Amino acid sequence: MKYGYSGRMANLNGTATREIFKLLSRPEIISFAGGLPASECLPKKEIQEIAAGLLGGKDAMRILQYGTSEGFDDFRDALAHYVGKVGIHGVKRENTLVISGGQNGIDLMLKTLIDKGDTVLVEDPTYLAFLQILNSYEGRAVGVKSNADGLDIADLTEKIKKHKPKLLYVVPTFSNPTGKTYSAANRKAIAETTAKYGVTVLEDDPYGKLRFSGESVPALKSFDTCGNIVYITSFSKLISPGLRTGVAVGESEIIRKMTICKQGTDLHTSNLSQLIVKEYMEKYLDAHIKDSLPLYRERKQAMIDAIDRYMPYLKHTDPDGGLFIFGRLPGGLNATQMLPQAVERNVAYIQGSVFYAGGGHEDTIRLNYSNANTEQIERGIKSLAKLIEEKIGGRK
Amino acid sequence: MKYGYSGRMANLNGTATREIFKLLSRPEIISFAGGLPASECLPKKEIQEIAAGLLGGKDAMRILQYGTSEGFDDFRDALAHYVGKVGIHGVKRENTLVISGGQNGIDLMLKTLIDKGDTVLVEDPTYLAFLQILNSYEGRAVGVKSNADGLDIADLTEKIKKHKPKLLYVVPTFSNPTGKTYSAANRKAIAETTAKYGVTVLEDDPYGKLRFSGESVPALKSFDTCGNIVYITSFSKLISPGLRTGVAVGESEIIRKMTICKQGTDLHTSNLSQLIVKEYMEKYLDAHIKDSLPLYRERKQAMIDAIDRYMPYLKHTDPDGGLFIFGRLPGGLNATQMLPQAVERNVAYIQGSVFYAGGGHEDTIRLNYSNANTEQIERGIKSLAKLIEEKIGGRK
Repeated sequence: MKYGYSGRMANLNGTATREIFKLLSRPEIISFAGGLPASECLPKKEIQEIAAGLLGGKDAMRILQYGTSEGFDDFRDALAHYVGKVGIHGVKRENTLVISGGQNGIDLMLKTLIDKGDTVLVEDPTYLAFLQILNSYEGRAVGVKSNADGLDIADLTEKIKKHKPKLLYVVPTFSNPTGKTYSAANRKAIAETTAKYGVTVLEDDPYGKLRFSGESVPALKSFDTCGNIVYITSFSKLISPGLRTGVAVGESEIIRKMTICKQGTDLHTSNLSQLIVKEYMEKYLDAHIKDSLPLYRERKQAMIDAIDRYMPYLKHTDPDGGLFIFGRLPGGLNATQMLPQAVERNVAYIQGSVFYAGGGHEDTIRLNYSNANTEQIERGIKSLAKLIEEKIGGRK
Repeated sequence: MKYGYSGRMANLNGTATREIFKLLSRPEIISFAGGLPASECLPKKEIQEIAAGLLGGKDAMRILQYGTSEGFDDFRDALAHYVGKVGIHGVKRENTLVISGGQNGIDLMLKTLIDKGDTVLVEDPTYLAFLQILNSYEGRAVGVKSNADGLDIADLTEKIKKHKPKLLYVVPTFSNPTGKTYSAANRKAIAETTAKYGVTVLEDDPYGKLRFSGESVPALKSFDTCGNIVYITSFSKLISPGLRTGVAVGESEIIRKMTICKQGTDLHTSNLSQLIVKEYMEKYLDAHIKDSLPLYRERKQAMIDAIDRYMPYLKHTDPDGGLFIFGRLPGGLNATQMLPQAVERNVAYIQGSVFYAGGGHEDTIRLNYSNANTEQIERGIKSLAKLIEEKIGGRK
């Protein structure tokens, strides 16, 4: 049978991330490739108790029956309150949409806005899956220059004028892949610039609460003066990715459009997941995050230390939170070509080039530190250093 | 803020179904509008036990971490075996994709196949949400004539030749909205005709196992000789809609493409939902369906009896299973116009016109009998009959 695929399929391959997940099922692999939260921090006992209580109590029937696409009203109210913690105030129920994880929020936003050929501005480099989802709408990503402070506002302005983008997509706190955080001043400038030119913004904040050093910065959305910013966050890194639950926050008009899109894609997010997250959020979340941070801090530090020790030639970021370090290999080494050899030696990373809107940057790599213990981190970095040195002919 | 919506949004409104769900939260309403399974049949005790066991046992960590977009391997194997019960044999793991309910399966299929302007053939009338999702891909639905036996094969052939459709979409067992079931001979003819012309088929089977009278007919997919048919079924009507879990079955090539699309829309279906359904399926499902059928049979019969008693002028279907009766109002009454008046009298239905690819058929209605008890069914039909008679000036 020859199927008549849609045009979008020509641009779609399995994301590098998902394909690598499969490769990594070999137990001897030390993986710096994924973006998984530390398994040690997944609160299985509390979730077990909550699930049993919910299904045995007054909420059982509303969990088991159909729900509405917006999500449960009481959960939405709780979420409206929750985002106050990142400086987003005045949020009402109608400004919220329960999403099946951050990925689902990105998809719904692009479905709402993007026609074939439309331009979206992104930080260069940016979240790989965003680029893939944009491909599925046959949109076009244009990279905006960035610096240690955040986006380059002059370049942002120029590219807005030149490309008339439908959307700007950013991960301003502990960015994927670089781990970078935009300053408050930079956020304010982004909000002002996009408001001035009427550009919608999608702020993706999956990692913001995983801050183990430095000072918190309010969400980009908190600088929104005209309703052009939609904020999404998920509980995948804070409670459990397997539950597939998050929230989108924005003006009721655009949230309503995203809700209509959600009706057609998965009808609604799992009711059981919604109420598990709601109760966990109310009872445990703040303390749980506080308890989890030392482990993340320790692992990041172990990776930084191992890099300093075994591959001092690697230029790299040093984040205050989140899951990732981004580095540049020495001697123009090609990270894509080197990956199979690394995996042969039981260590995996993701080549940085896949995070760039226009590709290139073949000598960059993304290293995840959250899902390996310190001993594995030490061993994995050492093994990777050995491979690099073989390829460049010694330590340089 | 003026958002730059995508072209598809012009065609998308909240589905009639979802909007009516909200209206129906008033407790005094007797609703024949939805498509909810009987709440009495949702197995809350068993699901509570299963969830507690899963989260307290060896599966806890794989439930809480990220999963793969395809779904859990062991669940997929179980699903491959499960569809054998509707005559689909020889299914391997790679022929299955776990979906977040039937809606998600439809969305992924259309994402895989449909470009703007592409034609899809559907039975006229067909599932409302299918038409809405097709709108979101800016595809065009063309209705195929049908009769008591299934699709009109001559009309199907003619429309395939004329429109060169990307897809044929059918609900061959207890169709939504009519409750009709295609004969085995008709299924064979559909399989042969679509194979001959290389048309991909989506067989949607959410209700097939809810048969309370008559003889089972094998799935349309069981007549597939060339791999052109993709079969989707969900556990929403059999176990719980709130868990959002189902399966798509097809050739590995197209399942792979749908999986890539799923990576971008919700990453994967809730892990907890997957394993709850798996265990429920293995331990309880067959017996649970058997136990549920008398209630569905009783409610359908109560509605048929009430129609015969109070509105003998209503021409209607009399299904052997599923959730719906489809009827034609007397005197050319307009069901859309009458709906607000019916809701004022605390009874709701869905106007049939929304199920037709080209609209029209304003005098038709869909009545759901699964989510009201027999006393409510009697009272609701009586009340509806009174309204109709007021409008047409007495019983005719």
